[in-house]
Amino acid sequence: MIDKPGEFELILDVFAPLAADAPGSLNLTDDAAIISPSSDQEVVVTADTIVEGVHFRSEDPPETVGVKALAVNLSDLAAMGATPHGYTLSAAWPSRASATWIKEFATGLMAMQKRHHIHLLGGDTVATSGPICVNVTAFGLVEKGSAVRRSGARPGDMLYVTGTLGDAALGLRLLTSQAGAHLSTDLQSDLIARYQQPQPRTMCSALVREHATSAIDVSDGLVADIAHLASASHVRIVIRRSAIPLSAATRQMIGNDHAQAMHVWGSGDDYELAFTAPRDWQMGKQLSEFSDVPITAIGEVFLANGNAGDVILVDENDDAIDIGESGFRHF
Amino acid sequence: MIDKPGEFELILDVFAPLAADAPGSLNLTDDAAIISPSSDQEVVVTADTIVEGVHFRSEDPPETVGVKALAVNLSDLAAMGATPHGYTLSAAWPSRASATWIKEFATGLMAMQKRHHIHLLGGDTVATSGPICVNVTAFGLVEKGSAVRRSGARPGDMLYVTGTLGDAALGLRLLTSQAGAHLSTDLQSDLIARYQQPQPRTMCSALVREHATSAIDVSDGLVADIAHLASASHVRIVIRRSAIPLSAATRQMIGNDHAQAMHVWGSGDDYELAFTAPRDWQMGKQLSEFSDVPITAIGEVFLANGNAGDVILVDENDDAIDIGESGFRHF
Repeated sequence: MIDKPGEFELILDVFAPLAADAPGSLNLTDDAAIISPSSDQEVVVTADTIVEGVHFRSEDPPETVGVKALAVNLSDLAAMGATPHGYTLSAAWPSRASATWIKEFATGLMAMQKRHHIHLLGGDTVATSGPICVNVTAFGLVEKGSAVRRSGARPGDMLYVTGTLGDAALGLRLLTSQAGAHLSTDLQSDLIARYQQPQPRTMCSALVREHATSAIDVSDGLVADIAHLASASHVRIVIRRSAIPLSAATRQMIGNDHAQAMHVWGSGDDYELAFTAPRDWQMGKQLSEFSDVPITAIGEVFLANGNAGDVILVDENDDAIDIGESGFRHF
Repeated sequence: MIDKPGEFELILDVFAPLAADAPGSLNLTDDAAIISPSSDQEVVVTADTIVEGVHFRSEDPPETVGVKALAVNLSDLAAMGATPHGYTLSAAWPSRASATWIKEFATGLMAMQKRHHIHLLGGDTVATSGPICVNVTAFGLVEKGSAVRRSGARPGDMLYVTGTLGDAALGLRLLTSQAGAHLSTDLQSDLIARYQQPQPRTMCSALVREHATSAIDVSDGLVADIAHLASASHVRIVIRRSAIPLSAATRQMIGNDHAQAMHVWGSGDDYELAFTAPRDWQMGKQLSEFSDVPITAIGEVFLANGNAGDVILVDENDDAIDIGESGFRHF
């Protein structure tokens, strides 16, 4: 469906180049696209929508909105251990969204396409009286039966997380308040980039597929997301607060304020991967293979003891910290 | 991403039953879903969004919105000759969308699922300050290489269309004006149902796959959609106005007013299939196999003669009718 006047030209001008090298896109000129996995592969599908005023700010550069729309989906594919293949884009634009905005948005998509070796396969654009609303449905490929689920964590496994947590929440805080003025410009930019242009850990998807017993991406907040793993795997997971990896910028901003720290890594939007793997996994060797992304052991998996799905946060003395509802967002 | 308070429960209560019998949905509890075609199949993907106030009216029963959200996508799959497999749903709800509205919406989805033997595979729900915005990305399966494209029409082929055209436009007119008061209640209901609850021609997808040289669904308006076929196939297509199939209700409403007729079947939203097939195709035999859906020959395919993409509408004397921009919508 093409609703906005001139949208047909827009598709040809702006979106066709995003699909140009993808045979399955049929150049965006047909009723549908085609994904043709090899006979030993299956297709992993994820869909995430970002809405102006909810997941991004009206003031955010349109290019960063394009980056984020793809990033939140590629992050889910990485958590399943899938290799990205392509995506469809369904966008609802209000009439105030200019051709310039849409072109810059497409520039962000193109940057992500090149980085992750994927193409636009199809989709649609419609008019809306509301905020900009961008849905991406992303497709990955895995060998049949090899997708990593949330349900495979076993007692004795360790819990790992990629990168650092809390940066995105602080990036948003920098954009919306006077906080962080004492940080260097570089550190401020780093935090803002974590919020505006999250980088999915696609490069870790092979590692997840080969070694993880369960995995999830950290999008809702650390404790909330680990609770999904614990619940699906019918285990109890203990997270060591002191082990949670924080960036230099985040350490400078929150110092030793534990409550603040818990708030920022409880806020989600970091799009790091959390996964469980056997204790005897060769961490040293693996780390050197994926040298750009630090991987940190932050906890351990235990028998549920009747409390399947429990997540317990402990301090330096192994005492449980009351997380109340603070680690959970949205539910 | 789950944004609206209580949305996690909503997913479990309302949407999990839609996914219950689909192994690839992973019960909606994972980061992504899985589509596992057999080794000789490929996946056909289409995405269409419907927006409150644009594609459906705020007053439309929520159940019909669920029907329409799936119908517009299944129609694209049928045009490709694909067998429906499943879908993802990405919905943006404003806070005024009540749990009752969402449950009734899901009832419409369930009715369509049962009719077309498909299941919900995944998706997300987000909050919006704007109108209700529902994206469905639908997946079909075809034997590798057998998807029907827009580009295969050949000179000498006939042009066929399923069902009747113009009913949806008149249904919308009945809902928004005093028109049609002279029609029986049954005929009024029929037309309104065509607008609110279009029925995709999934039952014709095998026929399209086996016999059509090119196909498209009629969603933007007859001439506009046939122009896509003509353009992709580098041919010229002549449509015989007198052959365009109209329902009894539509004939009663517009009488012999050719201008009105052109307006209603130029308005689209009928979600019938238009396709080209060789002239010697055994129409009689095929029609009896698909007895519930009338199929009508309405035109013919010719060499382009330098005017590839041309669509010419002719009257009873074979004289060309000036369609100006009237047959085209949106561009």
